[in-house]
Parts: sequence; structure tokens; C-alpha cells
Amino acid sequence: MRVVHDIEEMRAISQKARAEGKTVGLVPTMGALHSGHIELARRAREECGIVIMSIFVNPIQFGPNEDYEAYPRTLKADAELAEEAGVDYIFAPDAKQMYPKEPLTSVDVGKLTEHLCGASRPGHFRGVATVVAKLFNITRPHRAYFGMKDAQQLRVLIRMNEDLNFGITIVPVPTVREADGLAISSRNTYLSREDRLRAVVLSRSLKLAERLVASGELDAGKIKSAMRDLIMSEVPDALIDYVEIVDDDTVQPIDKVDGKALVALAVRIGGTRLIDNVTVKA
Amino acid sequence: MRVVHDIEEMRAISQKARAEGKTVGLVPTMGALHSGHIELARRAREECGIVIMSIFVNPIQFGPNEDYEAYPRTLKADAELAEEAGVDYIFAPDAKQMYPKEPLTSVDVGKLTEHLCGASRPGHFRGVATVVAKLFNITRPHRAYFGMKDAQQLRVLIRMNEDLNFGITIVPVPTVREADGLAISSRNTYLSREDRLRAVVLSRSLKLAERLVASGELDAGKIKSAMRDLIMSEVPDALIDYVEIVDDDTVQPIDKVDGKALVALAVRIGGTRLIDNVTVKA
Repeated sequence: MRVVHDIEEMRAISQKARAEGKTVGLVPTMGALHSGHIELARRAREECGIVIMSIFVNPIQFGPNEDYEAYPRTLKADAELAEEAGVDYIFAPDAKQMYPKEPLTSVDVGKLTEHLCGASRPGHFRGVATVVAKLFNITRPHRAYFGMKDAQQLRVLIRMNEDLNFGITIVPVPTVREADGLAISSRNTYLSREDRLRAVVLSRSLKLAERLVASGELDAGKIKSAMRDLIMSEVPDALIDYVEIVDDDTVQPIDKVDGKALVALAVRIGGTRLIDNVTVKA
Repeated sequence: MRVVHDIEEMRAISQKARAEGKTVGLVPTMGALHSGHIELARRAREECGIVIMSIFVNPIQFGPNEDYEAYPRTLKADAELAEEAGVDYIFAPDAKQMYPKEPLTSVDVGKLTEHLCGASRPGHFRGVATVVAKLFNITRPHRAYFGMKDAQQLRVLIRMNEDLNFGITIVPVPTVREADGLAISSRNTYLSREDRLRAVVLSRSLKLAERLVASGELDAGKIKSAMRDLIMSEVPDALIDYVEIVDDDTVQPIDKVDGKALVALAVRIGGTRLIDNVTVKA
């Protein structure tokens, strides 16, 4: 496995692989690798001739009061994990390479970014779509792998890929969870031991939503109330950013579960903002 | 020469050419070909192994009161001209292929689009950047050819290419002019015979700006006044959209010519909006 820092070197490697008829797989990450990322890499390894994992903490997707500076940067440990998972190249440019000038160009995916994290993190998905467009152009993958934990991001990138005709196969990979159900995230490392245990309430509230829908409760308001009540009863100092039920395609809030819906939440526990989601069908 | 309507067919043709080691050249147009376009195609023919000319009247770059419906569509004549100029493939998708769903994704190039046509045609450059990103992704050219008449468009696309790491060589091609100096444009066909003759005042006003700068006049306000006076004295019923002098890189208005500057104008003559420009150096 090789770590490549230079954009043009990465471009050349990928071009050569394509020219040799290899399927190029891209796994975009911000590093701080955990078993969710490793699952993306394993899947790419199974399906592709060459696996590129990008590791780039992208400044333009963080808000001014967010954790860009604090975000864990662990390239050495990441490289070992990536190699074990079968990654061929880590692409780890620095911010100056990715943004040598003031970035004037932005890629926006309207409508899908109006709610959920799009509402509470203005500009976040613009930053994500823009950097992923850059990574797509540099590596020109045949297939790109994204985790389903970032449900809205996944939908935004699927739509960007379609709308801008990138022609890439976007592969959604199921969320990896701890034994107790907590969705694995790089931000889990911010949690105190106690908060880590209490955070299980998030996945439990999603399970509750699933059970309610399965038992015939389709009123989104009632489902959300039950979820909120559960979260607040178990973690009274939790700060709920959102608990929302949206149409699975349009990411617009719905009143009634009808067809495929996305149940998603963002909650701060002990100051750490955690997200999770599940899709339900009625 | 072949006319291709299907996006995936075009993508496959271009991919094959790249795989064979050919240099792929793209000449994006809206059709209604004239000698300016032909010059782009000739230049591409000289420099590339395969020349693709796209012909697509892009709805999303026209404002609600602009000439999208009226814009000349002359594919048959265009195909003959393109073939003579050495084009290998015309890519002529229809609007439903290019926008099968409501287009949610847009590419914006900030700052460079604030003034000139960006100010008078809100959303225009977003539409241009978005469709060109799509064309770039479909055809993946090594080189793409754009005329210098569309000065702001050229700068926007150069910046988009850099910011989003498309890795394409953008080739600016000098404006082709009629014998009397009028910049050749598809919209010239809208002009009455009389207005066609009067329209020469635009290129003459740019020549005046060049002469003034050459003679040491660097005050942008004075140069613009002299240009406006010339235009209004010769065509009293002209409607000046803008006569502006901007920094050649940032496309921000300047008070004093210092280094490279872009002198640009947009003027309606007999209802037809014409643009032209020249770069000057002090």
C-alpha cells in the first residue's frame, strides 16, 4: 500500500489503472478510521481492481463553530488499518493542495439539503458535494463507497452523481454498529465513558420507530414524539438537534409513513453531536 | 462524422478513444454554428486525435424572459459545417436526456460572476457552469475549446476547471470578427440589416478604449464615458446593459487600468443583446 499526497500523482495512478482495464474503487473518508470505514474498504476490495481510500479532513464542510481543528487526525494508524483492509492507495492531500486558491466554485444539491443536517449545518453539504466532486475528478473511480450512517450525505451524492453525469456507481454500505447498537462514528471517541453508554438510546429510539411502524403506527408526529420521549427519559441532558421522518427520496418531512421513509436523528450527548438513521417501509 | 444523441453512447465513444491513447477535444456549443465555432473546431482538429462538438441549447442558462425558445436551432446545417471543419462526433442530446429529473445540483463560481453578464443575467453562469460540468463528465476531454468573445464565461470555466480538479486543458480561442469588426455571434442573425451595420459601433468603442489606454489614459471612468458617448452618438436608441472595465483575473470593476484589464460591454441594438470585449494592458 502507498500513501500519495500529490493530486497529479494520484490522478496519474488512477488513469494508468483505468487504462489497464482495472475497476477503480474510491472510498472517501476523513480518516480516524473505524470499522465502518473498514467495511467500505473491504467491500471495495471485493469489487474493484484497485482501491483508493482518500483521507482528507475537508475544511469547507465544517461550520465556523464546528470541530475542524479538533477532528481526530491519525494518519499512521489509519494507514495500518487501511492496508489490512486491502486498500492499495491512500490519497491524503493537504488542505493547501486541495484549496490552493480561495475556492470560488461550489457544488450545491438543492432540496435534498433543506432539512435534517442541512438545516442545522448550513453550508455543510455544499462543502461535502464540492470536495467529493473534486475527489471524483482526481481519481475518476468506477465505483465509490459511502456509509449509510450519513444518510443525507449519501442521498446528496447519489443525486449529484446523476445530475452532473459523473457516471460513477455509488455503493451504499450498511452502518456498522457496536454490540449494543450504537452506530460507529469517528466522533464517538469524543464521548466520556458514561456518555458512551447512554448514547445507546439513539439506536434504541430508531428500533422503537421500526417497531411502531411494524405495528401499524404511521403517524410521523406520534412516532417522533415517542422517540423524543424515550431519548429524554433516558438522557435528560441530551440536546435534540432533530428527530425527523422524511421521504426516502426527496428528504422532505412527511406527516404519514407511506412507502419508504427515512427516520433520522441528530442528538448532542455530553456536547458530542451524534447522528443515526434507519429506513422504514409501510 | 457521426451525430450522437445518447449520453451513454457518447461516454463510451470518448472512453474508447482515451483508452486507445487518443487526445479527446471538446468544443461545447449551442449550435447555430458560425465562423467563430468553426475556428474552435479547426483548432481542436489540429491539436486532438478525436474532436467532439456538443450542440445543446441549454435551458438552465436562459432567464425566464430570454430567448431560449427563439434561439436558432439548425442541426442539419451545423452538421455540414462541423464535418467540413473536421469534427468527428457531434453530441446533440435533447433536454430530456440532459435533465431527466428536476436538476437539483448546480455548480456555482462565485465572485467571477458578480459583475458584467453575471449581474444582468442572474443564474446564467450557474446554468453554464452546470451544463459544462455535465459535458466534461460525459466526454472527459483532455482539451476543451472556448471563444474569447464570451470573456466572462471563459474565466468562469477556467476557474471551475481548476477549483474542481477536472484536469482539462482549457483552450481560449480569439474572437472571430466580420470584416467591419463586429464580433461574430449566433445572435447577429436577429439583427435587421440596418442594425447590423450600426452594430459595428461596439467593436469601434473597444478600439477606442485600446487607443485611449495606449495613449496613457488609465482612468476607467473616463474610458467608459468615452465609449458610452461614442455608442450613444452613433446609435441613439441603443440600450447599454453595461460598459465596464474589470480586473482580468478577478472580474471585479477597477477605477484605474493597472496591469491586465478586461474592457467588456453588453448593448441592445434593435432589441438584440450583443456582447464584446477586449483585453488591455497598462
